[in-house]
Amino acid sequence: MQKISLRSPATVANLSCGFDTLGICLNEPYDEIEIKKIPKPIVVINSLKSSFSNIPTNAQENTGGVPAELIINDLSLDFGFEINIKKGIPLCGGLGSSAATAMGVVYGINEILEKKISQNDMLKYALEGEKLSSKSLHADNIAPCLMGGLVLVRDIKPIDLIPIPTGDYYFTIIHPDINVSTSEARSILPEKINLNVATKQWANISALTYSFVSNDIELMKRSMTDYIVEPIRSKLIPKYNEIKKTALDSGAIGCSISGSGPSIFAICRNKEEAKKISNAMKIPLKKSSIRYHSYISKINQQGVKTIK
Amino acid sequence: MQKISLRSPATVANLSCGFDTLGICLNEPYDEIEIKKIPKPIVVINSLKSSFSNIPTNAQENTGGVPAELIINDLSLDFGFEINIKKGIPLCGGLGSSAATAMGVVYGINEILEKKISQNDMLKYALEGEKLSSKSLHADNIAPCLMGGLVLVRDIKPIDLIPIPTGDYYFTIIHPDINVSTSEARSILPEKINLNVATKQWANISALTYSFVSNDIELMKRSMTDYIVEPIRSKLIPKYNEIKKTALDSGAIGCSISGSGPSIFAICRNKEEAKKISNAMKIPLKKSSIRYHSYISKINQQGVKTIK
Repeated sequence: MQKISLRSPATVANLSCGFDTLGICLNEPYDEIEIKKIPKPIVVINSLKSSFSNIPTNAQENTGGVPAELIINDLSLDFGFEINIKKGIPLCGGLGSSAATAMGVVYGINEILEKKISQNDMLKYALEGEKLSSKSLHADNIAPCLMGGLVLVRDIKPIDLIPIPTGDYYFTIIHPDINVSTSEARSILPEKINLNVATKQWANISALTYSFVSNDIELMKRSMTDYIVEPIRSKLIPKYNEIKKTALDSGAIGCSISGSGPSIFAICRNKEEAKKISNAMKIPLKKSSIRYHSYISKINQQGVKTIK
Repeated sequence: MQKISLRSPATVANLSCGFDTLGICLNEPYDEIEIKKIPKPIVVINSLKSSFSNIPTNAQENTGGVPAELIINDLSLDFGFEINIKKGIPLCGGLGSSAATAMGVVYGINEILEKKISQNDMLKYALEGEKLSSKSLHADNIAPCLMGGLVLVRDIKPIDLIPIPTGDYYFTIIHPDINVSTSEARSILPEKINLNVATKQWANISALTYSFVSNDIELMKRSMTDYIVEPIRSKLIPKYNEIKKTALDSGAIGCSISGSGPSIFAICRNKEEAKKISNAMKIPLKKSSIRYHSYISKINQQGVKTIK
C-alpha cells in the first residue's frame, strides 16, 4: 500500500466519575488524515485548511509526527511518510484531538506496513505522541479512538483495555471556544484525596460501568457524579454550572466535562432528545460573548477507519 | 406469626479492591437465630451454646438487640421479642458476623410483623446495629446478607444497592483465630490517598465488577489487586503473604482479606479446586501455632432465609 486516507474520531474521556479510566468514541467530530509513503525515511507533515488548522508541522512537535518518527526508527524503515492532516476536532478542547492525530497516524502507518505492528505496540506509539500534549500517560482517549465504543483502561503498564458493551446512546457536545490546556487542567488537580471520597467515586464508576452493560438508564443517571475532578476543573469553564443544569433539566441522562475540558458532554436517550438538549445547552453561551462549536453524535463502535 | 427460625449467612466484604463497596454472600458459615414474640415490649437475648457463643446478651450491646429495640420504639409495638442466637460465624473475623446478627434479627422481626418494614428501612435498622461493632456506617456486609449474591453498595445516604449477577464460583475461607477488631482495622487506614493510586484502584474495581457480569476469569484475576487497604491490613494477619501466595500458586482466581480481616478468602473455579486451595492455604498455619477455622462455600444467591 502506497497511501491511505482515514477518519480518526473524537473521544470523550472520564465520562464524569471515571477519571483516567473510561473513554468512549464518537462519530463526530473527526480528523481526516492522508498518509503517503515517500522515498526518504523522514516525516513531512502538512496541515490542510480547516477551522482548526493551527497545528505544529514540525514532526517532533506534532502528536502524529512523534510516533511516525519512532516507528521509522524502531523498524529501521528505508522510507518515510508524508502526513496530511485536516483537523475536524477542536484543539485543546477535551475531545481527544491530540489522541486522534496520534492514533490516526499510527493506524494509517500500520495499514501501509500491512499490519506489522501489534495492537499493544500501536497504542504505545500513540501514547508517546499523546504525551506531547498532556505531559502524562493516559490511554482513555487513544484506546476508544482505536477500538471504538466504550473502553475501560484497567492499566497502562502493561496496557490492559476492556471493551464495555453499550446501548445506542447519543452524545451532545458543546465546545466553548476558550483555551484550557490539558497539562494545566491536570496540574490543578490535588495530589491526594480523602479515602472516603475515593470510596464514593469508585462506587460510582463501578455502577456507571455496570449501567452501560445492563442498559440501566436510571442507574447511569445516579452514578454520573464526579466528586473529585469536576468540582475543580469546572471552575475553568465559564457558564459550566448553568450549561449542566440546563442539560439535566432538558432530560440528559448525565452531563459532565469531556476529558480535561472545556468541552461539555451530555448523554442522551436518542437523537431527538440530543437535539433538544443541545439547543438548551447553547442558551447560556448565546447569552454571553463566548463562541462555541456543537456536535451531536452516536457512539462510534468502530473507531478510526480507512476511507480509501 | 408468633415465632421464626432463620439462617443468617456470612458475607465477604471488599473482595480485594472494592473497599466499602462490594460484598458477597456465602452459604457457610451462618448464624441460627430464633425469634419469639413476648408480651412485654422489651428485647431478651440468649446466646445458645456454640463455638462462638461469647456475645453480649444486653440488648443495647448486641448488634441484633439495638435494631430490635429501635423497631419496638419506632412502631410503638406493645409486645417484644426473645431472640435466641446460635453463632456459627466467628466473631470479629471479617466475615460479617455482626451484620449477620443485625440483619438476621431485623429480617426475622419483619417476618413476624408480616413484612411491615420496607427493604430500605430494614437495611437502615441493621446498619444501626452494625455501627456498634465497626464505628462506621458501611453496608457491604448487611446488603449481601439480606439480598444474597454480589452487591455493589453505590451509596448509603440514601441507600442504593446494585445486585451484580455472577457465575457459580466457590469461596475458600481461612479464619486465623486471632483478634482483629473492625474499628482497629479501620483506624489504621490512611485518611488521604494519592489520586494516581485511587485511579488504579477504581480501574480495578470497575474491571472486577465487569468480570463477574461477563464471567471473564482472566480479567477477574488481573483486577483483584488492592493498592490501598490490603497492604496495610495484611500486616495485622500473621502468615498473610504466605497464605495468599499458596492460594494463588494452587490456582485461586484471587485471594485477599475478607472485610477487615483476619479471615482470608480465595475465589475458586469449582468445589474441587476450592478443596485443593483450602488445603494449601492451611499449610502455613499448620506449621505455626495459630489455630484456624476453614470453610468452603458456593455463592449464596438468596441471603438470609426462614427455616421455619
